[in-house]
Amino acid sequence: MKYFDKLRAASLRNASLLCVGLDPDPERLPPCLQGRKNGQLLFNRAIVEATKDSVCAYKLNFAFYEASRLAGLAAIIETLGAIPPEIPVIADAKRGDIGNTAAMYARAVYETLKFDCVTVNPYMGGDTLEPFMAYEEKGLYILCLTSNPGAADFQLPQDLYLRVAERCQEWNTRGNCGLVVGATHPGQMRAIRAAAPGLPFLVPGVGAQGGSVKDVAQGCLMKGPYAPGFLINASRSIIYASGGNDFAEAAAREAEKLRQEIQQAVE
Amino acid sequence: MKYFDKLRAASLRNASLLCVGLDPDPERLPPCLQGRKNGQLLFNRAIVEATKDSVCAYKLNFAFYEASRLAGLAAIIETLGAIPPEIPVIADAKRGDIGNTAAMYARAVYETLKFDCVTVNPYMGGDTLEPFMAYEEKGLYILCLTSNPGAADFQLPQDLYLRVAERCQEWNTRGNCGLVVGATHPGQMRAIRAAAPGLPFLVPGVGAQGGSVKDVAQGCLMKGPYAPGFLINASRSIIYASGGNDFAEAAAREAEKLRQEIQQAVE
Repeated sequence: MKYFDKLRAASLRNASLLCVGLDPDPERLPPCLQGRKNGQLLFNRAIVEATKDSVCAYKLNFAFYEASRLAGLAAIIETLGAIPPEIPVIADAKRGDIGNTAAMYARAVYETLKFDCVTVNPYMGGDTLEPFMAYEEKGLYILCLTSNPGAADFQLPQDLYLRVAERCQEWNTRGNCGLVVGATHPGQMRAIRAAAPGLPFLVPGVGAQGGSVKDVAQGCLMKGPYAPGFLINASRSIIYASGGNDFAEAAAREAEKLRQEIQQAVE
Repeated sequence: MKYFDKLRAASLRNASLLCVGLDPDPERLPPCLQGRKNGQLLFNRAIVEATKDSVCAYKLNFAFYEASRLAGLAAIIETLGAIPPEIPVIADAKRGDIGNTAAMYARAVYETLKFDCVTVNPYMGGDTLEPFMAYEEKGLYILCLTSNPGAADFQLPQDLYLRVAERCQEWNTRGNCGLVVGATHPGQMRAIRAAAPGLPFLVPGVGAQGGSVKDVAQGCLMKGPYAPGFLINASRSIIYASGGNDFAEAAAREAEKLRQEIQQAVE
C-alpha cells in the first residue's frame, strides 16, 4: 500500500491527524527509566501503548538515537517493532546527498529499517530527492518552510520556500511527496498550499514551539483524496507532558486532547 | 587542538591537500571481502593503511554505513579506531535540524563518535548550525555549492550559494567553519572565495564527477594561516581504483598520484 493511502487509512481509523514524535532525550527520561540500558526503547514502548489510538502516525527523529550509538540504533529498530503495523512511521532524518549516496540513504531508511516515510532536505536539488521518490510505495516530506527562527535566513528571503514548493509539486509524478511546513508561519501557509496543491503537509511547530492548530487547519487544507492534506506533529509537549513516572498516562491525555483539538479545527 | 590546526598539521606533515572518502558500498567490495560480515571495516582498514601517508584527512559518508544497520555503525566506530589519531576525520552526514535536535546530532558526531569535523546543511538557517559551531575545538563544513547537477535547482538561482557563503562568513566568530564547494563549478569559485575570505573549502567533485584540480587550486586559494584554504575529497576514484583484490595497492597509487597533482597545481 502506498504511504499516503496507509496514512489516510490510519487517519480515518483513529479520526486523527496527529503524529507523535518519539524523540526521547536520554537525559529527560523519567526517574524509573533513568540509567536503564534500554531506557529509550522502554520509554517509546510505553508512549506508543498509551497513544496508539489517538494518532495517525509516529515520527522518530534520528538525532535522539545517534548519541547512544549501537544502543540507539537498536532502540530505533525495536521501537519500530512495537508500533502497530497499520500505523505509518516517519523517519525524521532530513537527508540530502548526491545521487549514489542518496540511494544508499533511501535503501537504509526504507528497506533496511523499513520506515514508511522519511523527511529530506531540498538544498542539493531534485537529483538528490529522486532516489527517495523512486520508491513509489514509500513517502517523503521535503523541507519547505521550517518552524525554527532560522527559516528567516534562507527559506523566506527571495521566497525560496515557494520555489521549493513549486518544484516539488512538479517533481511529484509518483504521488508520494509531501512538504514540511512549520505551524509557526501562518502567513505563508496559504501561499505554499497554492504553490503545491497536490502535496500533503507534515506540520511541526504546534505545542512547544507555539504554532496554532486553528491556523494550520485553515491554511493547510487540501482537496482531493488526501484531504484534509496535513498531519500535525507534536513531540515534546506530549512525551514530556509529565516528567514523572506517570509520563505515559500524561502523554495519553495530551495526545487525545490535541487529537480532539485538531479534529474540531478541521470541522 | 582546533580542527583547522589539526588539519593544517596533517597537511604539512604529508605535504597533502587530499581527503580520501571512506565510502564502501557493500555491493562493491572486492571479491576477497564479499560476504564477509565486517567487510566494510576490513576494506577501510586496508585503504587507510595504504593511503595514510598521502592524505591530510579522511571523510566517512554515513549513508554507506546506515544500510548495514548495527554492523555499519560498528564499522564507523572501528574505522575511526584504525585511523592514525593525528589525521583528522570528517563525518559527512550533512546534518541540519532545529536547535535542540541539532544539539543532539552535534553531541553524537563530536562527543559520542569523536569525529573532528562534520558536514552540515544550511537550509534551516543559522540557529541550526550554532549547536555545531559551539564546539570550538571541532570543525564544520556548511554546504554552499554542491558538485551535483541539482545545484542548479535552488543553490544557483538568485545566487543563494553566495548568500550562504556571506552569512557563514559572518557567523564564523569562532573560526571553526568552512564551506563545501564542488569542483564542478569553476566559474563560481572565485565569487565564493570573495564572499567568504575566511572560510576554508572542502571540495568534492574531482575524480568520478569530473572537476579539475587546476580550477580548484586557482579558484579556492585563500590567504592567512589556513592557506591554501582548501582540501580536495576523492572517494570512488581512489577506493575503487581497482575492483579486484589489489584494491589497496591501486588506492595507494591513485591517492599518491592525486596528492602530487594537487601539490603541483598549488605551486
